[in-house]
This record gives sequence, structure tokens and C-alpha cells, in this order.
Amino acid sequence: MSSASQVVALDAMGGDDAPAPELEGALQAIDEGLARVILVGDEEKMRAGLRALGKDPSAYGDRLRLHHAAEVITMDDHPAQAARAKKDSSMRVAFELVKKGDAGAVVSAGNSGAMMACGLFVLRRMHGLDRPGVCTTFPSKTGVCALIDMGANVDVKAVTLAQFAVLGATYVQKLHGVPRPRVGLLSNGSEDTKGTELLRDTLAMLRRTADADFDFRGFVEGRDIFGGDIDVVVTDGFTGNVVLKTAEGVASVIGKMIKEEVFAGPLRKLGALFLRGAFKSLARRLDYAEHGGAPLLGVEGNVVLCHGGSNGKAIKNGIKMAARLSSAGLVDAVKSALAGSHAMWADAAATA
Amino acid sequence: MSSASQVVALDAMGGDDAPAPELEGALQAIDEGLARVILVGDEEKMRAGLRALGKDPSAYGDRLRLHHAAEVITMDDHPAQAARAKKDSSMRVAFELVKKGDAGAVVSAGNSGAMMACGLFVLRRMHGLDRPGVCTTFPSKTGVCALIDMGANVDVKAVTLAQFAVLGATYVQKLHGVPRPRVGLLSNGSEDTKGTELLRDTLAMLRRTADADFDFRGFVEGRDIFGGDIDVVVTDGFTGNVVLKTAEGVASVIGKMIKEEVFAGPLRKLGALFLRGAFKSLARRLDYAEHGGAPLLGVEGNVVLCHGGSNGKAIKNGIKMAARLSSAGLVDAVKSALAGSHAMWADAAATA
Repeated sequence: MSSASQVVALDAMGGDDAPAPELEGALQAIDEGLARVILVGDEEKMRAGLRALGKDPSAYGDRLRLHHAAEVITMDDHPAQAARAKKDSSMRVAFELVKKGDAGAVVSAGNSGAMMACGLFVLRRMHGLDRPGVCTTFPSKTGVCALIDMGANVDVKAVTLAQFAVLGATYVQKLHGVPRPRVGLLSNGSEDTKGTELLRDTLAMLRRTADADFDFRGFVEGRDIFGGDIDVVVTDGFTGNVVLKTAEGVASVIGKMIKEEVFAGPLRKLGALFLRGAFKSLARRLDYAEHGGAPLLGVEGNVVLCHGGSNGKAIKNGIKMAARLSSAGLVDAVKSALAGSHAMWADAAATA
Repeated sequence: MSSASQVVALDAMGGDDAPAPELEGALQAIDEGLARVILVGDEEKMRAGLRALGKDPSAYGDRLRLHHAAEVITMDDHPAQAARAKKDSSMRVAFELVKKGDAGAVVSAGNSGAMMACGLFVLRRMHGLDRPGVCTTFPSKTGVCALIDMGANVDVKAVTLAQFAVLGATYVQKLHGVPRPRVGLLSNGSEDTKGTELLRDTLAMLRRTADADFDFRGFVEGRDIFGGDIDVVVTDGFTGNVVLKTAEGVASVIGKMIKEEVFAGPLRKLGALFLRGAFKSLARRLDYAEHGGAPLLGVEGNVVLCHGGSNGKAIKNGIKMAARLSSAGLVDAVKSALAGSHAMWADAAATA
């Protein structure tokens, strides 16, 4: 089944600048044959936005559909309350389309906490799972590394983290084609004596998985995310957020230093001219917009979170990711992996 | 009082390649007039190492002294046990020299946990302080930002973190000349509702310090370490380690990408030639060895931790930092700041 046959429900009102980037991204995705898109939001605003882009939605046939939803969940809304109360919000309605089978995946650049809540309320968490997790990929020296969780799971248990390992490994297997992903648990040193008590409990739990479908490498450090020897790094949502924001900060300060150094003299400026392509290519490799969104793993449906400040390209890549999750049958793969590794945390769950 | 009049006790046996980098760094520091140095370690090995460098210690007069210590604390030693049991270790003896007043500061590239333990056993923690903290500086868009803690404090209380804010702010005031440092508490978002319960308790504790000698800015994110708007970022030792290792990882992968991009074609190679100076300068700005060591704050004496893999330049800069801490009277300044902000955590300490 090709990606283009996949239907993606896009929350057109979610992002900081909605709906313009959402509309642009949807049209790009359709033009590139990545997916069919259902735009969910205020129909009048969506039609006006498309007109502003000089586009007539009826020209796209079944590749583009508009689905009206009157309400919007904002960034200031309380995630769980808004997801529950705003039943006709563009986000919640987009999730309902996946629930009803009208779409294979949902994409939104809106309130990420509300997306987690919609995932739980509308799609439901998978059987036996403690908490769903959000997975982001970082560039590494040999490809990419997936980090889970980047979401709202600030207070976790050992079983939560052990299950994140299964979610992340299955994602990397199915989406990046890594047959037996190397998985590490993020700590403050690689020795077994490092970390918190919670992390050492998780380490023991993951060590009991001798026949798991992934290669558990024990504790890893922040630098291992980028080193190329680990495919999945597991952590709680607090530490995951710190890693992501630190990485963004370092990339930004290095970018500024490069500019300062490169424009510090005439010969250097000439050199920079010859290197323009190199700097552009580097910027592209580091640009989050190129990497699509972040999947929410562990709910009964495919969900992709995009950055609130997403431009059209980032939305397009989010749709591409959503269509790939759907094509790959990720939901069934994750459910089967969770069932298969049930013994890992059965004892812990029984006593929790 | 100039730095050169400062006496620094250097653990010559601590680093991964000891004593060669320690000896080189000590001689460079002396040659540059940064400090007088007492080398502490196996006297025979130190003399052999100096001979290999073609140096005669007696030529340096009172600028270089050798102090024999028979034992060594290794990276594999249990920190607290080794610090207690190995009374004649180069690290512990170097700390004793500060305790006795023979040196104004101690520097080591050895086992950092053992340095924390020596700080507590030999120098003692400051009155009223919960835990000492290790402070590292990162390059930011406008200068530097200090992050505390980078040490072994994995399990902290709110009062531990609130006191880290005072330690870090005093350090930045005295060593970087920032009159009223802007201090942030590292979290997974800037809103007061973010973070763990412990972090929200710390936030409330720090908010009560209206007349403090620093400007408390509430929760900050990982990217704020590098943005230039915050001078001190407070966190626990686990998260601090993740930040440091993530930053190293990102810098390393960007360095690799730059090399790949720059050598991808002949014009780019020519451009890179013109930019050689720029890349060298950038590498220097990101090189930890340029930034000296990390001070251990909150014990009754000046202590500087160097990276285990320190080369001679890194040791020299560690000695420079140690002499500056001593010249600046940092210990007294921190004690006075702690006493002055006692009201901030008095209630919490009473009920803890």
C-alpha cells in the first residue's frame, strides 16, 4: 500500500500561525503524493486561507477534504480539561476521524498536552501500557537516534520507562528499518552504580529481557544520543525536554559563532562564499522542519505531534511521517511487541 | 593581591594520563605567572616526569614545590571509602595542604566523587549548607552561563537547589563580575505549572527572596543556558550531567557534519582553506580545555575539578581558575551570601 493512499487528518487550527502553515503543508503533501488529507477546522477560515493561496479545494477531488469543527484548543488551555470539554475542537475532531477509521493518522501542531489527552480519551491507551510516550529523532554520527519520552511524563515508574524501550525499539524497527535496535537508558554515567534508584530498578527490569527484539545496552550518557552507537535512548519526559532544548541551544550558539568567525575578515568572507552550499546543507541537516513531527506511541491510532511554530514544510513532513506510520502498521506492531514483552514487567505491575 | 602570589596544591596523580599533563600544566602556569604550585604525588615519579620534560624543579625556587604522597585514588575507587581510607593519597594530601593554609586552592583531574568526599571530610561543608555543588560554565550568545550542579547530587531537596542558586550567583558575581546575576531554575518549560513537585517547591522558596543579591527569573529551559539572558542555571547533578554530555554530543556531531560538508567538493575545499582561521577559532571557543576546571562550591576552601582526560593546557587553566578563586576570596563571599539568605530556607530546614 503506497503512502499516497493513506488518509491523514490534519488539525488545521493547532499551530501558532494556523491555519496558513497547515494549509500550505497539506497542499505540498498532496502535490508530492505523500497522502490524502482531511483538513479539520473552521471551514470558513480554511476556505479563505486556501483562496489566499489561489487554490480551489474542489480541484483536488478526494485528495483534499474539508471537515468543519467550530472550536479550537489553544496553547493556554488546560490540556486534559480542554480535550474533554471541547468536543467540537479541530484537534479532538481530527482524533475522532482516526477513531472512526476515516483517517489512518492524525497530525497537529497544537497544544501537545491536549494531544496526549486526546490520544488517551479518544483513541485509548494500548492494553497493559502504563503511559504513552512521545518519540523524537536526533541526527547522529551514523544516522539518527530516537529519544523517548519528549512528552508530559514527568513522574514515571520503572515500568513506564521499560515500556518506553519497547515502544521506541518498535518504532525504529518499523520506520528506520533497524532489525535489532540498540537501546540505552539515559543516565549520568554508563556504570550500573550511576543514576537514581528508579533508573537502577528500570535497568534490572530491562536486563531480564534476554530474548527481547532489541539489544539493551544498559546506561548511556547524553553524548551517546549523537554518537551513532545507540538507536533508541529512553528517558522520562522532563529529561527528554531538557535534552531537546539543550541540543537546540547548542546548535543555535554554534551557528552564531560560525557566523561571527566567518564574517571576521575579507578572506574569510570569500571562503564563506565558496562554502555557501555547505552551510545551507548543514542548516538543512539540523533543521527540525526537515525531520517531520514526533509520533505519540502507545495509543490505539497513529498520532504525530508537530512543533507549535511549524512552517508549511514542517507540516508537510509531519503528514509524510503520519502516512508512513499508517503504511507501516505501527499500531499493530507496537501492540504485538508490548504483548510479547509482557513478562518483563508483569511482576512489577502486579506489585505496583 | 596578584594571582601569582597564590599557592595552588595540584594533585599530580589524578588524571587519566597522570602525571605528564599535570606536570606540563603546572610548569605552564608558573611560566605565565598565574600561580605558585605545590605538586602532590609520588616524588620519584614526579621527578622522573620533570626530567623527561628537561626541567629541574630546583630552578623554580618557591614557585614550584614537590610534596610526596605515596597513595593514589583511582577512577575505580569507591569515592567516599577511598577519600576516607587513603589518607596518604595525592588527592587527600593536596586537600590537607589547603586545610592547613599552605595552599589557597586545590586542583585535581582525579575521581570527582572522591574530590567531593575530600571536600566534605577534609575541608568541611559550610555552616547551614545542605550539599556542596559543582559549577561549570558554558559559552552563551553573549558570554558565559554557569550551571550548578554538575556533581554527584542525584537526589536533592528543594533547599539543596535553592542553596545552589546562592552558590552559583556568588561565583558569577565574584569571578565574572556580574553585579546582579540572572538566575533560572532548569525545568521542562517556563510556566510555573511545569516541572516536578520538587521543582515547584524550589520555585516558591526562591520566589520568597525579594531582596536577594540575584535576580531570580523562575523556570528556564535547556536552550536558555546558551541564549545569553541567564547567568546561572540551577539543577540537580543528574540533569546537569545530561546537559553537559548532550552539549558535548551536539558539538561533536555538528563538527563532524561541518567536516563532511566542507570537504564535499573542490570549491568548498578552497573555501575551507580561507576559513581555516575561523574554524580554529571556533574550535577554541568550544574547547573545554580553554575554560579551566569546575569549582566545587560550598566547602571551606577553594577546590577546582578538572576533566579526567585533561591535557596540559586544561590543567594550566584549572590552576588559573584556582588562583582566581583564591584571589577573589570566594569562600568568604559564599559564606556571607549563605548567611544573608538564610531566611529563604530556614522554615524548610526546620521542618525537613
